[in-house]
Amino acid sequence: MSELAPKSPRESEVVMTQMILPPDANPLNAAFGGKVMEWIDVCGGIAAQRHCRQVVVTASMDDLHFHAPIMMGWIVTLRARVLAAFHTSMEVGVVVTAENPFSGESSLTTSALLTFVAKGLDGQKIRVPPLLLESEPERRAFQAAHARREARLARKNQTEGWRALFPRVS
Amino acid sequence: MSELAPKSPRESEVVMTQMILPPDANPLNAAFGGKVMEWIDVCGGIAAQRHCRQVVVTASMDDLHFHAPIMMGWIVTLRARVLAAFHTSMEVGVVVTAENPFSGESSLTTSALLTFVAKGLDGQKIRVPPLLLESEPERRAFQAAHARREARLARKNQTEGWRALFPRVS
Amino acid sequence: MSELAPKSPRESEVVMTQMILPPDANPLNAAFGGKVMEWIDVCGGIAAQRHCRQVVVTASMDDLHFHAPIMMGWIVTLRARVLAAFHTSMEVGVVVTAENPFSGESSLTTSALLTFVAKGLDGQKIRVPPLLLESEPERRAFQAAHARREARLARKNQTEGWRALFPRVS
Amino acid sequence: MSELAPKSPRESEVVMTQMILPPDANPLNAAFGGKVMEWIDVCGGIAAQRHCRQVVVTASMDDLHFHAPIMMGWIVTLRARVLAAFHTSMEVGVVVTAENPFSGESSLTTSALLTFVAKGLDGQKIRVPPLLLESEPERRAFQAAHARREARLARKNQTEGWRALFPRVS
Amino acid sequence: MSELAPKSPRESEVVMTQMILPPDANPLNAAFGGKVMEWIDVCGGIAAQRHCRQVVVTASMDDLHFHAPIMMGWIVTLRARVLAAFHTSMEVGVVVTAENPFSGESSLTTSALLTFVAKGLDGQKIRVPPLLLESEPERRAFQAAHARREARLARKNQTEGWRALFPRVS
Amino acid sequence: MSELAPKSPRESEVVMTQMILPPDANPLNAAFGGKVMEWIDVCGGIAAQRHCRQVVVTASMDDLHFHAPIMMGWIVTLRARVLAAFHTSMEVGVVVTAENPFSGESSLTTSALLTFVAKGLDGQKIRVPPLLLESEPERRAFQAAHARREARLARKNQTEGWRALFPRVS
Repeated sequence: MSELAPKSPRESEVVMTQMILPPDANPLNAAFGGKVMEWIDVCGGIAAQRHCRQVVVTASMDDLHFHAPIMMGWIVTLRARVLAAFHTSMEVGVVVTAENPFSGESSLTTSALLTFVAKGLDGQKIRVPPLLLESEPERRAFQAAHARREARLARKNQTEGWRALFPRVS
Repeated sequence: MSELAPKSPRESEVVMTQMILPPDANPLNAAFGGKVMEWIDVCGGIAAQRHCRQVVVTASMDDLHFHAPIMMGWIVTLRARVLAAFHTSMEVGVVVTAENPFSGESSLTTSALLTFVAKGLDGQKIRVPPLLLESEPERRAFQAAHARREARLARKNQTEGWRALFPRVS
Repeated sequence: MSELAPKSPRESEVVMTQMILPPDANPLNAAFGGKVMEWIDVCGGIAAQRHCRQVVVTASMDDLHFHAPIMMGWIVTLRARVLAAFHTSMEVGVVVTAENPFSGESSLTTSALLTFVAKGLDGQKIRVPPLLLESEPERRAFQAAHARREARLARKNQTEGWRALFPRVS
Repeated sequence: MSELAPKSPRESEVVMTQMILPPDANPLNAAFGGKVMEWIDVCGGIAAQRHCRQVVVTASMDDLHFHAPIMMGWIVTLRARVLAAFHTSMEVGVVVTAENPFSGESSLTTSALLTFVAKGLDGQKIRVPPLLLESEPERRAFQAAHARREARLARKNQTEGWRALFPRVS
Repeated sequence: MSELAPKSPRESEVVMTQMILPPDANPLNAAFGGKVMEWIDVCGGIAAQRHCRQVVVTASMDDLHFHAPIMMGWIVTLRARVLAAFHTSMEVGVVVTAENPFSGESSLTTSALLTFVAKGLDGQKIRVPPLLLESEPERRAFQAAHARREARLARKNQTEGWRALFPRVS
Repeated sequence: MSELAPKSPRESEVVMTQMILPPDANPLNAAFGGKVMEWIDVCGGIAAQRHCRQVVVTASMDDLHFHAPIMMGWIVTLRARVLAAFHTSMEVGVVVTAENPFSGESSLTTSALLTFVAKGLDGQKIRVPPLLLESEPERRAFQAAHARREARLARKNQTEGWRALFPRVS
């Protein structure tokens, strides 16, 4: 099954540049957080799709941090990279930097970890290629991703937690 | 300082109803994940703002899980509730259910935890009222939020992790 | 025909919360009227759809009044309620309040009456359940809706009126 | 005061052409009613603004009727015309036709009556020019507008009606 | 073939009025150029579609000039007219004027030339009606369009030019 | 004046990745041309702004060709590069490729040439750095850009051409 040959993270990297325009702003004239999340979801999803070449759907997001605000008119660069491939899912890291267009200075503004699941045409989960780990930092990132996955799935199904404060749905 | 009198989570609850229209869809005709994230950010932000009555900015999101897809034309209900108030930040839980408009059946589709920081007019962080905990489940949720906060801040500043695989910015 | 059992207005109530963000604003930095109309149409349509559990299409809108402007960054709450069910159509009332996020004060800003028609899969009009009237004010609202309906349909087909000033279309 | 010289309705007519694209559609692939309302509000507002050359805000909408659905890809033409000018407000009629792009056939799909209020830079209501009535139909439309205005303002302030079924706001 | 009877440019003229609202603005509070291009594409495409009554797709744009900026809140009028019909394509001119809503003064702000190709239901190019040239200026515009077409197609396929500085794609 | 030291085109290159989602589509479920133009304008504008580190406004677009359609769900990559810097303006080339997300195959779909003008805080045109030409193809592209500029400005001011068929504005 040639499509399951291991693939390097390099093959699925994504660079997405955006400019903060008025429809992307909040009432304070800085980037609206929800819009940045939307871009992160698209950018990460493209990386996952380039890794597996299947339909992918977002399964989770964690560790989204807004490190600094992004001002109106600034240039935003999102970079996504597959950190780990499991059987039918992938963890993708996304890092967002913002560039002051007048000084050219860039700084980290947002980062997030997402997981995506590959689906076949019948809507069933489908195998994804293993990740080719080529360096020691990549191997460490992969192991950390494995540990996060265990913890994430445990929390997802934990029905006794904070979600119990909300009206119950079937 | 009367504005710092404890407030019940009930006072800041938010219910937001949306319908999945074509601009909210992905190429598979289901709700686009990034759009749902955007609504979660707005819904959670309103709850935080109702708690502190200050400007709030999104600081983080965790444990966002897509439990089930949402189809075009379905009715989406988001509910947000403040789970914990710290010195200048609040943790808010958001639960999203989707309703089949023809059968009326509803089910959990997405849930997420967000933190928001309150800002004064000078852009500095500002104190928020403590949360009035009125039941045992609320107290447990508050303690769990405290533990998550510790872990979250530790991960945020962990520069040796997966973010080191990306080009370094100042 | 169990789907035509009378239903209480309570069963189809909708609460929709929105925040006025820059894409929702007019050049004066207040809520753009057309956007508020769009939300009213969605909110009212969900109430109608919850009443009949069929596809619904907007048939008319009347008595839309903007009582007060809504400022950028304010929180908007739309509430919709079925006021009357006829054979294949429903009248829905929508009331919009705006909340100053800093003071928490709310006031009525917009209200409107809409009618929606239920459609079957073949595009034909379809019967809707009668409305269960449980109080005297509900009964009075229902009678007023009946009277409005007569007047509305008369005006709709009145080809000699103001529409005659426009170029004639078939 | 030369700006208060009477103006003909012809001087403020507006023609707005739009095409129904996916972001304008409902889940049935026809034009989403809320989007058409938004266009009607903009089109009518431009006519009012051309009449008075001041800032205008939407005050009300009535007699909005959807006579026929509009399909995806169809061409929509909105026409607006000032029907009456009062002291500080104007009634504007908007007629919407939809054109099948393949056959060229057009038909009436929507019509609505709106009122707009003129505002000075200080936010106060401001006088608008009288309307120059040049034909018998224009005079009749003006008289009908006067009668509608009386009825509309009476209904607007009628607090005992259907709005009493909703939670009271100050 | 009656659909190929010559048609006058008058039969396919389009007038599209828009108002510059916040989602149409750039960070300087003037109209965002990309949004104006979007409107030009729709307006020109409607003219082409009215000429041939087929599906049309944009093939090219040239000579788009921004003669003057357009401010927030101003009224924009786009006018499109078919300048030439070739076998399966049409050249359309679009002229954009902006009107200061307070003074009523209008001036040319943008103009552009576009070509559209007509497609049958099978996706193949399809014949369009010839253009009925009724005046000397129309004939001169048609001849100029012919000359531009030659030059345009030559440049399109010129692979040795500036596009060679970009990474090659198959 | 250190800001006017020559800069290499490499320093201002932009890569922008997008996915075709429903709001970006036309009624045929392919990318809407006007939306692609909007992205081209933003992508080219960022390159120009990175070259001069000033506010830039779009002055013109030419040679926009749609070489092939882009399907819903496909991944679009826009690349922009400054081709020439004149006194206060820059010519930027933008090349758009579309990637089938399932096969990974990419092909050229759109290309365009734009000019941007740099503006100071007072709205006046402002000097931009010269372009550092480092290879023979870059020098040839620069010379071609010079020739295009002459022709473009001549056409822009040519009032006897096709624009004379439209209603005259001051």
